[in-house]
Amino acid sequence: MKHSRSILIAFLFVLQILSAQKLQSPNQKLQMEFSLQSDGTPIYSLTYKGKVVIKPSKLGFQLKNDAKSLLNDFTILGTKTSRFDETWKPVWGEVNSIRNHYNELAITLNQNGTDRQMLIRFRLFDDGLGFRYEFPQQKNLVYFTIKEERTQFAMNGDHTAYWIPGDYDTQEYNYTTSKLSEIRAFMEKAYTTGNVSQTSFSPTGVQTSLMMKSDDGLYINLHEAALINYSCMHLNLDDKNFVFESWLTPDSNKDKGNMQVPCHSPWRTIIVSDDARAILASKMTLNLNDPCEIEDTSWIKPTKYVGVWWEMISGKSSWSYTDEFPAVQLGVTDFSKAKPNGKHGATTTNVKRYIDFAAKNGFDAVLVEGWNEGWEDWFGHAKDYVFDFVTPYPDFDLKGLNDYAHSKGIKLIMHHETSGSIRNYERYMDAAYKLMKEYGYDAVKSGYVGNIIPIGETHYSQWTNNHYQYAIEKAADYKIMVNAHEAVRPTGICRTYPNLIGNESARGTEYQAFGGDRNKPNHVTILPFTRLIGGPMDYTPGIFEMDVTNGSHVNATIANQLALYVTMYSPLQMAADFPENYEKFSDAFQFIKDVAVDWDESKYLEAEPGQYITVARKAKGTDNWFVGNVNGETARTSTITFDFLEKGKKYEATIYSDSSDANYLTNPQAYTIRKMKITNKTKLSQFSAPGGGYAISIIEKKKK
Amino acid sequence: MKHSRSILIAFLFVLQILSAQKLQSPNQKLQMEFSLQSDGTPIYSLTYKGKVVIKPSKLGFQLKNDAKSLLNDFTILGTKTSRFDETWKPVWGEVNSIRNHYNELAITLNQNGTDRQMLIRFRLFDDGLGFRYEFPQQKNLVYFTIKEERTQFAMNGDHTAYWIPGDYDTQEYNYTTSKLSEIRAFMEKAYTTGNVSQTSFSPTGVQTSLMMKSDDGLYINLHEAALINYSCMHLNLDDKNFVFESWLTPDSNKDKGNMQVPCHSPWRTIIVSDDARAILASKMTLNLNDPCEIEDTSWIKPTKYVGVWWEMISGKSSWSYTDEFPAVQLGVTDFSKAKPNGKHGATTTNVKRYIDFAAKNGFDAVLVEGWNEGWEDWFGHAKDYVFDFVTPYPDFDLKGLNDYAHSKGIKLIMHHETSGSIRNYERYMDAAYKLMKEYGYDAVKSGYVGNIIPIGETHYSQWTNNHYQYAIEKAADYKIMVNAHEAVRPTGICRTYPNLIGNESARGTEYQAFGGDRNKPNHVTILPFTRLIGGPMDYTPGIFEMDVTNGSHVNATIANQLALYVTMYSPLQMAADFPENYEKFSDAFQFIKDVAVDWDESKYLEAEPGQYITVARKAKGTDNWFVGNVNGETARTSTITFDFLEKGKKYEATIYSDSSDANYLTNPQAYTIRKMKITNKTKLSQFSAPGGGYAISIIEKKKK
Repeated sequence: MKHSRSILIAFLFVLQILSAQKLQSPNQKLQMEFSLQSDGTPIYSLTYKGKVVIKPSKLGFQLKNDAKSLLNDFTILGTKTSRFDETWKPVWGEVNSIRNHYNELAITLNQNGTDRQMLIRFRLFDDGLGFRYEFPQQKNLVYFTIKEERTQFAMNGDHTAYWIPGDYDTQEYNYTTSKLSEIRAFMEKAYTTGNVSQTSFSPTGVQTSLMMKSDDGLYINLHEAALINYSCMHLNLDDKNFVFESWLTPDSNKDKGNMQVPCHSPWRTIIVSDDARAILASKMTLNLNDPCEIEDTSWIKPTKYVGVWWEMISGKSSWSYTDEFPAVQLGVTDFSKAKPNGKHGATTTNVKRYIDFAAKNGFDAVLVEGWNEGWEDWFGHAKDYVFDFVTPYPDFDLKGLNDYAHSKGIKLIMHHETSGSIRNYERYMDAAYKLMKEYGYDAVKSGYVGNIIPIGETHYSQWTNNHYQYAIEKAADYKIMVNAHEAVRPTGICRTYPNLIGNESARGTEYQAFGGDRNKPNHVTILPFTRLIGGPMDYTPGIFEMDVTNGSHVNATIANQLALYVTMYSPLQMAADFPENYEKFSDAFQFIKDVAVDWDESKYLEAEPGQYITVARKAKGTDNWFVGNVNGETARTSTITFDFLEKGKKYEATIYSDSSDANYLTNPQAYTIRKMKITNKTKLSQFSAPGGGYAISIIEKKKK
Repeated sequence: MKHSRSILIAFLFVLQILSAQKLQSPNQKLQMEFSLQSDGTPIYSLTYKGKVVIKPSKLGFQLKNDAKSLLNDFTILGTKTSRFDETWKPVWGEVNSIRNHYNELAITLNQNGTDRQMLIRFRLFDDGLGFRYEFPQQKNLVYFTIKEERTQFAMNGDHTAYWIPGDYDTQEYNYTTSKLSEIRAFMEKAYTTGNVSQTSFSPTGVQTSLMMKSDDGLYINLHEAALINYSCMHLNLDDKNFVFESWLTPDSNKDKGNMQVPCHSPWRTIIVSDDARAILASKMTLNLNDPCEIEDTSWIKPTKYVGVWWEMISGKSSWSYTDEFPAVQLGVTDFSKAKPNGKHGATTTNVKRYIDFAAKNGFDAVLVEGWNEGWEDWFGHAKDYVFDFVTPYPDFDLKGLNDYAHSKGIKLIMHHETSGSIRNYERYMDAAYKLMKEYGYDAVKSGYVGNIIPIGETHYSQWTNNHYQYAIEKAADYKIMVNAHEAVRPTGICRTYPNLIGNESARGTEYQAFGGDRNKPNHVTILPFTRLIGGPMDYTPGIFEMDVTNGSHVNATIANQLALYVTMYSPLQMAADFPENYEKFSDAFQFIKDVAVDWDESKYLEAEPGQYITVARKAKGTDNWFVGNVNGETARTSTITFDFLEKGKKYEATIYSDSSDANYLTNPQAYTIRKMKITNKTKLSQFSAPGGGYAISIIEKKKK
């Protein structure tokens, strides 16, 4: 008896080991292990250089009207391993060439009793793990509704986290830096902000991408890639065990996804390194997205722009044309008879001023907000037919301004504020895009301020994400670039649709004008670790006058604002301040004129979330480099080398930096500019003020 | 003291009388009285020939986030009376000329404290009362959300009602005839049916239009007119006091209407007479709608059609092309490689057969359902991208069939089943309408089977009603006629948009194929009193073979089916059965070939809801008349005169009637045909079987 029992135990032990599946990254530093619990629950875990990144964590789905769900009682039907190593060229980016190199393990599971199949595909890169669920065509699973996805990310300790509250409707929060165990205590304070559309769901729920740092020096980022036809994932923390679990965004019926097989989830991503710079440099999110779907991409162009925008944000002007009506009706209200309020920003005169400034200073485009009828009652009213996207105010000469701009080599950037009324936007989208082509616009900034209409839907549900994707794909058909504000945070879709040249989807420069609720000075040292993991951000930097008209204050120094053009990567960069402020500091403004918006190479020189980021980038098709450093609240000396420069070449560096007494709050406009001859052997120790930074343009000194 | 108190009382009494406003109909038989209660609640009441129709009933609105609401504390700011008398010509109709004659009283109310204004406009016709709420442009009311409309209709007794259960998603019920006090007891049974989308809300809630008969012989109909940009009204009964109150359809957020001032509600209508025929003849619903918005209406044509439809409903054929896939993906699934199921109805061969039959027998058009990809998994799955409305199955020759039809003077009728996925329909609507014009379709039958997507909305919310209206108006731009099934019940909008040539929006012939749940034999004697008050119904009559392929049975005789072409008014009439069944009874079929679909005059000869309807109509532009009688469950003799014929003229009447032993259940196909010479002095006593009827075509015998 005892003998056969030992044999049985040994057999089960072997079976257990046999069912454990392992995967290594190409450089073998990352190891992933997959297995099934005794009850058939799928489990995965991850180590990096032998250190635990993800403790054994469950995988699966809770289904609606299905008690069995897809949580357990699985067996492994089959496994398949493969390697992939390919280099591809993005249309625009931080670099001009990206290596996509991973080992893959695809595990097909079969559920006992139901005979349903679920495949989990793991891709292990040198910079992290991506995995997704797939449901192959099969007899016993055709349609299903997700009640909740149950993907766990079990953390190995009370890590430090850089987080914003989970919310179905906005990402526009300051980041809180705290231990995981402190999230609950800090949640109420973190959530308190002035946003017009907020919907939290849990006292320990946070948004992706989530950046963390362990006590043993591991940097860990959790996010998703290729969020298409699915609900956006948040992370809900069990703060006793430090286990995060996926928490999807519900639709108006409180379901979390309507799925038709064959289908798959987005990729769940875990980027990990013991070097913070590697997190910023990771291309895993892009690599997990499908290759570019657009054949001819010649019309997609990185763009540096100015615009009629900050004057409305800061209270100097209004988007609206008149104060005469508490509400307007498109096609009924006769604006030509209305009394202008005298503060309208988007007037022919004012826009011409910006066009002149843009042309004089080498910019590509001018954004104009408030050009179209409807701004008098544009939000807070759940107004369905709020804009038609085609009818200008009486004082905005649509044709004349575009002709004027084009005569000076400038394009106007279109603005489509939807007020969250997405059915209305879809109804007018073709007409709106056609108008853009007719008048020579090739880029649009879209917005989704306020609650989504139909009321009951949120900004990040499957339903609404489907709309954002519809707008991007239709824009591609029209050869139009899209910069979507208040839309769902990006997840690398710009690889597949590079006409998606930007999103806001986080708290940007505009919040600097919102008084007590404005951005923390170290906000820009966190965003690249969190929001930018999924794609570029239209942060709209470049404010030189920190005391805002409405009494608020921009928590940054001028040098910090210059550095953002390098540290806050975006193919779309705005010089957001007023022309007169640039003219007042024209020597500092020179950096903005010189800085590139598209790159061959990028090197992250030093980085610590919440404290500092320094990056060097080589301007595409040139031998020129630009360096940017942004600093948190503590003054420091940044020490860098220029070993990224080409050996044997000589360069002239122009360094724009904080004065020694600069401070984001008390002395933000104190900067110095100096020139230096440098080579790849040069070292630099540079002072960086609280909320400060520095920017360097490096031009090759060619031999005469 | 006593003296001044008497004066005070007298003063208040006078004030009370002064605040009571009266309105009379042109013929003075209807009297409406409006007043304010002491708490400022608006009240109205109605009498007909001195009999109470509406006891004093409250008016007003409960608002969201507004405890005060718009319920009471009003004073009368002003009143305005006017008269209106105009005759207008409909594009198509039961008559060619309609008199719009009413006395109007518009009362502007002001609410104490809030200073908000609400106007109630009453129009009193000889056939009934219509009133609506209006909100003029004003400072203190700009946007508001309705929590519930509180319009009461206080009945003067325990009337007999002909009702269907209140339901946010379907109108496809058999009618229950009962006392108001019995509605609660009968509700469960009434609600039990096989519809795929049902949502009831109250044990005493019923739908409009509601038909009633009082013990003292008054016929009363409650409905609404001009339901545009508002939620559909149901009626909830307080069955202790017999007071109905408006119960609007909620949106996915549980609100009942988002309103921007200036705006108004639809008209609430009370049609009343002591003669049931006057209810059927009333044109009040049309008269309350705005005049025709379409300038050139030459493309709008009443249509008699056959189609590939009944064979799918009765189970002989399928809408779908293949049984090979449990689900399909448009643009991905390759139907050309799929194994045809051999039962597809909409094949080139089969459609040609119908085209030949239509051409041979003088029809205008052939409807084809199941022509397009997507029917394999078309409902029950909340499938978003379910149809694209443009891609035919491999065995449906889109171009060839249209060419063939046109060569024979026939048009095909397009079919757009949306499966309730209304965002999807709107995305494809332009392409779908364009395809119709390209191939020569001028009419479309649309459908909304299944739950509305976005899930959470219902079929009759403001949001969804907005969609139906969008489809109608866009169709008008494309010169396309619309016949919308499963859409909200009509409310006379076809006056403003006469391209809306039909709706289903009630239980039609298709339910005869649904076994035990099929139509009661007297269903067609109730529908004109209820569903048709708002507009024509595409009832799709003309079934000759009552034993359905799938085992069900059509509860009607052949004579009854012929009569429906006259009694169930519609500018769009289908001969729904198979050609072979018409060929089997070609002498009876002759009536369907002869009957007109557009009329100069209509005379209701006799009518009793639930029992019988007999009507005579004069074919437009001719001197020919058609008479139809439909009968309920009890055999009877119908006695009519032909005094509507022109004096001094001679006519030949062909009478298609039940045999003496005909019965809808046991002997439905027993009919006789006889010819008679008649004049306007002729009287007829005609037997009508259970579930039976008769049809008469009357041709003028011109002098040689």
